[in-house]
Amino acid sequence: MEQLVLDDVLAQIRTALEENDLATASSVIEALRPADQAEIFADLDDHQQTALLPQINPADAADIIEELYDEEAAELAVQLPLSTLVRIVDEMEPDEAADLLDDLKPEQAQEVLARLEAAHQVKHLIDYPDDTAGGLMTSAFLFLQRRWTAAQSIAAIRAWHPDEETIYYLFVTDRLQRLAGLVNLRQLIVADPKTTIAEIMEPDVIYVTPDTDQEHCAELMLRYDLLALPVVDAENKYLLGVITIDDLVDVLQNEASEDIQRLGGTLPLDRAYLDTGILAITGKRIGWLLILFFTATLTGGVMAMFQGTLEAVVALSIFIPLLIGTGGNAGSQTTTTIIRAMAIGDVEWADGWRVFWHELGVGFVLGLGMGIIAFILAMVWVGDLQLALAVGISILCIVTWATSAGSLLPLVVARIGIDPTVVSGPVMSTLVDATGLFIYFTVATTILRL
Amino acid sequence: MEQLVLDDVLAQIRTALEENDLATASSVIEALRPADQAEIFADLDDHQQTALLPQINPADAADIIEELYDEEAAELAVQLPLSTLVRIVDEMEPDEAADLLDDLKPEQAQEVLARLEAAHQVKHLIDYPDDTAGGLMTSAFLFLQRRWTAAQSIAAIRAWHPDEETIYYLFVTDRLQRLAGLVNLRQLIVADPKTTIAEIMEPDVIYVTPDTDQEHCAELMLRYDLLALPVVDAENKYLLGVITIDDLVDVLQNEASEDIQRLGGTLPLDRAYLDTGILAITGKRIGWLLILFFTATLTGGVMAMFQGTLEAVVALSIFIPLLIGTGGNAGSQTTTTIIRAMAIGDVEWADGWRVFWHELGVGFVLGLGMGIIAFILAMVWVGDLQLALAVGISILCIVTWATSAGSLLPLVVARIGIDPTVVSGPVMSTLVDATGLFIYFTVATTILRL
Repeated sequence: MEQLVLDDVLAQIRTALEENDLATASSVIEALRPADQAEIFADLDDHQQTALLPQINPADAADIIEELYDEEAAELAVQLPLSTLVRIVDEMEPDEAADLLDDLKPEQAQEVLARLEAAHQVKHLIDYPDDTAGGLMTSAFLFLQRRWTAAQSIAAIRAWHPDEETIYYLFVTDRLQRLAGLVNLRQLIVADPKTTIAEIMEPDVIYVTPDTDQEHCAELMLRYDLLALPVVDAENKYLLGVITIDDLVDVLQNEASEDIQRLGGTLPLDRAYLDTGILAITGKRIGWLLILFFTATLTGGVMAMFQGTLEAVVALSIFIPLLIGTGGNAGSQTTTTIIRAMAIGDVEWADGWRVFWHELGVGFVLGLGMGIIAFILAMVWVGDLQLALAVGISILCIVTWATSAGSLLPLVVARIGIDPTVVSGPVMSTLVDATGLFIYFTVATTILRL
Repeated sequence: MEQLVLDDVLAQIRTALEENDLATASSVIEALRPADQAEIFADLDDHQQTALLPQINPADAADIIEELYDEEAAELAVQLPLSTLVRIVDEMEPDEAADLLDDLKPEQAQEVLARLEAAHQVKHLIDYPDDTAGGLMTSAFLFLQRRWTAAQSIAAIRAWHPDEETIYYLFVTDRLQRLAGLVNLRQLIVADPKTTIAEIMEPDVIYVTPDTDQEHCAELMLRYDLLALPVVDAENKYLLGVITIDDLVDVLQNEASEDIQRLGGTLPLDRAYLDTGILAITGKRIGWLLILFFTATLTGGVMAMFQGTLEAVVALSIFIPLLIGTGGNAGSQTTTTIIRAMAIGDVEWADGWRVFWHELGVGFVLGLGMGIIAFILAMVWVGDLQLALAVGISILCIVTWATSAGSLLPLVVARIGIDPTVVSGPVMSTLVDATGLFIYFTVATTILRL
């Protein structure tokens, strides 16, 4: 829905709430689509949320809770009467319900769980970490038997009235409930009603185990264009649950947005930006800022080392920001390009040397171009041939070095098991600062014979 | 499939190709899943690709071409005999076929089009830009009529044997072929066979027009958890095509990876990294590097302005990298956080002032902490109280300034229509460099009474 319309709806609900007209407020919100309901709801004050939620029908309330940030949902849940909370949780997807209960106090979670209709579906999901296949999967799925016919299967689907997301791929199990194959709904409809599932199923199914990392699940679903991914017990291949495409899309969005935050040198936020307190945001940033600060003292150390040189030719200092800035930028360009190539599978560890030579070439060409421009600039600015030569040659060396080193950095850190987005950007600049200055002063002392 | 297995398969195919055994090579590749086929295929040399592709059955060849980068696919297509190319293009999804033909020379595209079986489905897609709804949509879809019964509709689906992606959402049209509603396959199966489509369809359908930007399409599908999005004629609401979830996932991945590259200050690559030449990569980077270089001369200008100060107290220069580095890092942290909050809809233009005050608070707390640490560091390092005070106060001011300015930058540039990822990272650092130095020298000359 368009933003302007949503703003109107929000104003309407706020007015109703101020007049204590909960019935109007809840009927207005119930008429919206889930994503719009959640957006409107998130914009209300905390006490308005707590007052309104019990009045909204449980299915819509469940949708709203599912769309909120985990922390916000848990804070809201704590405020609700137990009976209301139970009614809402019963309408949630089992995987989302498990995530929510996991964020509550253990006593409260137990109380809710004891009263849930679908307790058996939720209970065994609670223990899996949120960012694994076990945490993403739903246990509310229908499985077909190999010996059933297409007609029997369709009858089972009708009787089961499943959720939309879990129906397009139907997984087939053998008598011991082990994963045996996959049929998609289209095949089932197109098939002769008397055909057995065993005849039309695809036996070679891609699956994961509950401890598989969510990023790997997303990669598999993306790579093979899967609408659903089965999760099986590692030992016996029992079918435990199914990850659906809507969960994958959320994972992808979150990972992309977390990567962007990490590239900027900050830990990802856990909740909506404007609801995150100043101290919480500061906490997410100060760690990196301090690490980078102390790394930057290295650069200060290099400056101190060459203080004699600086005292002799103060004009040298004018070019410091230019040189280390350009080096840092060239390095960041390379690391982000390589991180992206690694993410889409274009580049891997085994390509290391090819990547290095490639970037060495790029760095040299870039460095030569930038060096010539810097030389001209220095001649115009300071008018000293030797100084201009020192600046130009330094840029050539720094850019070549930053580019080629920047190509290996993400590959090496990924190899030792660190997310390369974390060490890119700021770390790269800080490291290039110190080495770049060292190169500059060395070249300058040589050429200027200091 | 695991990487090691794929490497084995690649070696097997290479051996077969060296022995000119095209039959073995093609049967090995045909046994793989499409994504694996494409990965293996992309690793072969150009002449091997050209020799092998005509031997692979057209449906698999079409999958391979669809998975390649656009430029690579076009280069390969040019090498193929016309009859082979026509057979392959006929197996491609109409939207992918249109993209490929659009990348060929007009004469060649015309020749292929003239011989295609599905020419009518492809022809009208060619003119839409790749990054719009028109470029993403497929025209191979089935639409239902309102007066049909569920049983009739299922019979139509069986007769049509559609592709997997286009079947889960079925769009309903009225007699004039205008979009009238949506039925999903699950509703169709669960419904009484005699119910008419008009009774079960959802009449309020979210749709786009052909010129809608692909990012907006992705946002809508994500927000409302849609598996398919109909594209209609802006004037008459004629149903023109359907965008499916697999296309959306590709868009999301590309946008995320392009954002990451832009944050690093480089234009996104058009093809696989290792296949992109050194000069092409240089071309993607030199523009930004030059812009940032000339912006950095501003910083050099500030240094030149305060050369007298620097000559008087050379020790001041030791702290320059530390100060401007910390300012740049603090600014990047803020811009990336805000860019992410904007991307997921947490923050928009109207929140500008709230965001600014929020970040002013964060910046002050961060700056205070970093300032105290910097003061202690400077006391230990240089042992001059006034200098240490100048450094500490400068850090406080620079971090507060970089953080609060960094919060508005993405909002302002997005407002004037520029992608905020482009101006974040490097631009932020470069701007903070100059202003940070100015702050430092001003504070230092005041405290040290220079």
